[in-house]
Amino acid sequence: MTTTDLLARCAQLVDIPSVSHDEAAITDFIESELRAVPWLTLDRVDHTLVARTTFGRDRRIILAGHTDTVPANNNDRARIDGDVLWGLGSADMKSGVTVLLELARTVDAPLVDVTYIFYECEEVASQHSGLLKVEKARPELLAGDAAVLAEPTSARIEAGCQGAMRVAVTMTGERAHTARPWMGTNAIHRLAGVLERVAAYKERRPVLNGCEFREALQAVHVEGGVAGNVVPDRAVVTINHRYAPDRTTDEAFEHVRSVVADALGPNDAVELRDAAAPAPPALDHPLLADLVARVDAPPMAKLGWTDVSFFANRGTPATNFGPGDPNVAHSANEHVQRQEIERVHAALEGLLTTGAA
Amino acid sequence: MTTTDLLARCAQLVDIPSVSHDEAAITDFIESELRAVPWLTLDRVDHTLVARTTFGRDRRIILAGHTDTVPANNNDRARIDGDVLWGLGSADMKSGVTVLLELARTVDAPLVDVTYIFYECEEVASQHSGLLKVEKARPELLAGDAAVLAEPTSARIEAGCQGAMRVAVTMTGERAHTARPWMGTNAIHRLAGVLERVAAYKERRPVLNGCEFREALQAVHVEGGVAGNVVPDRAVVTINHRYAPDRTTDEAFEHVRSVVADALGPNDAVELRDAAAPAPPALDHPLLADLVARVDAPPMAKLGWTDVSFFANRGTPATNFGPGDPNVAHSANEHVQRQEIERVHAALEGLLTTGAA
Repeated sequence: MTTTDLLARCAQLVDIPSVSHDEAAITDFIESELRAVPWLTLDRVDHTLVARTTFGRDRRIILAGHTDTVPANNNDRARIDGDVLWGLGSADMKSGVTVLLELARTVDAPLVDVTYIFYECEEVASQHSGLLKVEKARPELLAGDAAVLAEPTSARIEAGCQGAMRVAVTMTGERAHTARPWMGTNAIHRLAGVLERVAAYKERRPVLNGCEFREALQAVHVEGGVAGNVVPDRAVVTINHRYAPDRTTDEAFEHVRSVVADALGPNDAVELRDAAAPAPPALDHPLLADLVARVDAPPMAKLGWTDVSFFANRGTPATNFGPGDPNVAHSANEHVQRQEIERVHAALEGLLTTGAA
Repeated sequence: MTTTDLLARCAQLVDIPSVSHDEAAITDFIESELRAVPWLTLDRVDHTLVARTTFGRDRRIILAGHTDTVPANNNDRARIDGDVLWGLGSADMKSGVTVLLELARTVDAPLVDVTYIFYECEEVASQHSGLLKVEKARPELLAGDAAVLAEPTSARIEAGCQGAMRVAVTMTGERAHTARPWMGTNAIHRLAGVLERVAAYKERRPVLNGCEFREALQAVHVEGGVAGNVVPDRAVVTINHRYAPDRTTDEAFEHVRSVVADALGPNDAVELRDAAAPAPPALDHPLLADLVARVDAPPMAKLGWTDVSFFANRGTPATNFGPGDPNVAHSANEHVQRQEIERVHAALEGLLTTGAA
């Protein structure tokens, strides 16, 4: 247990604006808090700060959190009301960062070595990610036996993460004047078959490591049309697919293709636009199993995508565990409960100081 | 029969560029050709020229053609190959304008009074139409008992015209994260029901005045989507409807609404975006019946929309009759046959000089 008022500390971080690409100030603040801590070695790559212990323990755990937020939504100032903190980033994920910062500042003799990572640009296209910059500049800083991402999970273990991909389905046709449509083929009409199949999709719910994943297939964009009096020869629907970690990205893409295949003709196309790989729960790793034992609620599957995937796909088992309700992240009424911050802090402090040997 | 080489005359007009909003030069040319013609009274409203005979005949016929073209498509210069003229506007509708100009210049004693109208801006939004400008500035110039639009019809009578409307169908839903789509409702998925019904539409083919119309219902534009990871709460499909002149615009709109009604929920909307009214065939009018008798091929229905509607909806029976294949209008290989120009000229000359009393 800490005597620090973690809700107030979190409010302090919320009051330092840090929308993606603007993390200099908050990283400076964290660096200033940790610079004098004798058991930490600090390295900074742009606006990502890595603080490591180097006790020569058998194992090393990575505790990571991003410092950036999405843009404000009339909620850029912190407001504490009883045991609730309101404000941008309070859940996603300055409360998690608060916990990591507190542990880094106070846990002077962990039983495992710890790498704390405070990184920039998680809320934007992955090419900007601070983790990628560190990997490029100082890959050795990312070494570890397991990783915990303090993403908002309502203080539960949310294990692994589902993959996410976007697939573009392009339907073709032949232009004609709308007064003589029988001279052509309407590509927008041909979308009906694709949308029907996607709308009727029955998702899998595979259980892995005791965690039930739940896949999803959703059209997220549609466009088509040439002019107000022309039968259109092209229409494109973009489909977002979330897939459990028992499938590879290739397998998941083939699955999406098979769902819409019957609606396609020889000139239509199904293309993978982008993909972020899934991560398995990995709860059988000793460090993560120890953490699971310290949390009352049973672990659940992470349905969204997080940087757990970044670590898992580089061979480091990882899980999500942080304060804050993921359902209020990115919303105007984002907030976090004091109790959740304290529970996450207690579990991780316990892992570092009494377990994990 | 004329001794003028009408194909060469048409080439002359094709070589005067007159893309919509740029009709000054071609109107100047036509005005210069007609200024000295003793049996004509000329009036000009911007770049629309009205040339009238004033013999005090019992009836007055309007012969009208637009001077503008769509933008060039590597076909802005006239090229004559045997009895075919290639080039922008050759079919739509400088060959028709050639016929009207020849009649105006040469028919010195018509049995009906004639109002020749050479007007600007037919190929763009109707608000720019030269006919509307004349109606506003000099409405008396548009008076007449019947009207012939020399639009391309392959030298056949294409009677009346179908109406055209665009209807926007907006489907609604509820946003959610694509990793938890069951928290929302996907508006793009809900489009499937609308598109199915439009694609399966069986059109009416009503026969009016012996002319078979053929209606059409075509999606011409579709759009929807919020972000790559958001279940979209809005999707809009725009539908183009062509309707026969036995229905009013209100009736046709209600018909479109009824086609998609079963796919709609209480928060979805069906809105009329714009409409251009249809025109009945009106072939029983004596002047038009006389013209029909002078054309070998039986009259057909005009499936597209033309300014026949402008006249019909102001109480003047009107029909389409001009050289050029409407299917090559607006295309890179636009062209016209000498024979069609001569046949249209002969029929109209006959109407003015030997019939129509």
